[in-house]
Amino acid sequence: MYDTIIIGAGPGGLTAGIYAMRGKLKALCIEKENAGGRIAEAGLVENYPGFVSIRGYELAQKFKEHAEHFKLPIIYEEVIKIDVKEKPYKVITNKNTYETKTIVIATGTRPKTLNIGEDKFIGKGVSYCTMCDAFFYLNKDVIVYGRDTSAVMSAINLKDIARKIILITDKSEFKVAEPIMLDKLNEIKNLEVIYNAKPIEILGKEKAEGLKIEVNGEIKEVKADGIFISLGHIPNTEFLKDSGIELDKRGYIKTDENCKTNIDGVYAVGDVRGGVMQVAKAVGDGCIAMANIIKNLKNL
Amino acid sequence: MYDTIIIGAGPGGLTAGIYAMRGKLKALCIEKENAGGRIAEAGLVENYPGFVSIRGYELAQKFKEHAEHFKLPIIYEEVIKIDVKEKPYKVITNKNTYETKTIVIATGTRPKTLNIGEDKFIGKGVSYCTMCDAFFYLNKDVIVYGRDTSAVMSAINLKDIARKIILITDKSEFKVAEPIMLDKLNEIKNLEVIYNAKPIEILGKEKAEGLKIEVNGEIKEVKADGIFISLGHIPNTEFLKDSGIELDKRGYIKTDENCKTNIDGVYAVGDVRGGVMQVAKAVGDGCIAMANIIKNLKNL
Repeated sequence: MYDTIIIGAGPGGLTAGIYAMRGKLKALCIEKENAGGRIAEAGLVENYPGFVSIRGYELAQKFKEHAEHFKLPIIYEEVIKIDVKEKPYKVITNKNTYETKTIVIATGTRPKTLNIGEDKFIGKGVSYCTMCDAFFYLNKDVIVYGRDTSAVMSAINLKDIARKIILITDKSEFKVAEPIMLDKLNEIKNLEVIYNAKPIEILGKEKAEGLKIEVNGEIKEVKADGIFISLGHIPNTEFLKDSGIELDKRGYIKTDENCKTNIDGVYAVGDVRGGVMQVAKAVGDGCIAMANIIKNLKNL
Repeated sequence: MYDTIIIGAGPGGLTAGIYAMRGKLKALCIEKENAGGRIAEAGLVENYPGFVSIRGYELAQKFKEHAEHFKLPIIYEEVIKIDVKEKPYKVITNKNTYETKTIVIATGTRPKTLNIGEDKFIGKGVSYCTMCDAFFYLNKDVIVYGRDTSAVMSAINLKDIARKIILITDKSEFKVAEPIMLDKLNEIKNLEVIYNAKPIEILGKEKAEGLKIEVNGEIKEVKADGIFISLGHIPNTEFLKDSGIELDKRGYIKTDENCKTNIDGVYAVGDVRGGVMQVAKAVGDGCIAMANIIKNLKNL
């Protein structure tokens, strides 16, 4: 029986783990792929305070080493279900079932992909995260590809940073959450929009150099220094189906200001609870959630 | 007219500043004392993810350098009032008045005092800051007075410096944030603990020479070369009196899950909004608050 099980070993999960171990809890962290999380895929990270500029992979390693320093046990299994109907809670993986008093869900999100082979250019000119990587394209030309609010927000975020933004979509218009966003989009002076463009492939060899598209049956090559694919994210919450944990309509976990879900003793931290998707926020969440768990376990 | 003014240059304020500058906002950070914040007074910090063990002063420097790297303007003035009744908001310091669209309050907390006339011994044997002054007591005897995490951390911080530590409390036990702290306390060889002791007065004339206490109705004089008062903190929110910003009964700023106060465009981050008082949380707050400010400024 564990005091706490942390599902996911990204920045939020590992921070929760560091605090759990320092709090002398019997803790277990279960990770599907790589400890450190998706930040390892980022190029340079320049907005995690304390490190002016660090490679994403290196920062992921530092988080992992920090958790290991405090002897957080990390096992590599895939959680397929949790049972929080009654205590003790159960975390069911592809290999085992674990019992625990509390759970921290830190499973993150995955970006919606274009599926035109862009994966080999990640960190080499292709990014799924404008807020993370915009600054690398200061006074450069960028492509933003997308269909809705995510893409429009990316273009707006880039307008004072990039020299030129080429916003490309395969639709004939952008579907935005608030019409005012389109006004804002139209005000951008350094913007070009290409509608009805089917993406064919990423141009370039070692580094992305642009996007090949098909518009009205015609093939075009659009050159740029960077390509932001802004199709939105999918929260990794499929394993929570029928668990009773409340999700919003997009599948993100609903939490209160302490990162607690609607179920007692079950917390969600980082990207999987929606909102700002940043390492700093995930780390803050992990700290808040575990501090609350420790406080509650000690008072119980 | 600024897009955003950040009041306070601790970890939360500097993180907000880093995000503001990367978001190309016209930002100003106003600090009363030292950029980096009170974390500079901490001994070793071992729970800010990414740094297994770092001196508080060094971490504070890193935060400051990170913000300076992105050219956050930091000015050294004391904010005495803010006017958020209508826009543009006004931030009034002891020297100037600044106009701004949004405000981030990151003013932190300050140590609680004992109020037994110890103020005349400040710098003469009495200190509220272990890390600032511990080294003056190398191989000497010190008293630490307190009730919770602050006092236990002070004792731990002094263990390799002082000859003997006498930890005094008016409680029957210490209430700590992380149980590992009590283990660490119990490991200290040069420690004596006195419980249920009411402080009466500071002994000495020109210089503090010890503490007079009452234990079970009996008056005792405990001699020492220095006295550290470690009672925890008071939020620095007096300047918000009559501002209309909602505080809780202890004076901490009330916020929602995005760190927003009850006033549109006014946010609070870090220790000043209460809850967990950790660098990781302050940094997460700073990120969340400024990401929300950027989003709102660009959509309006």
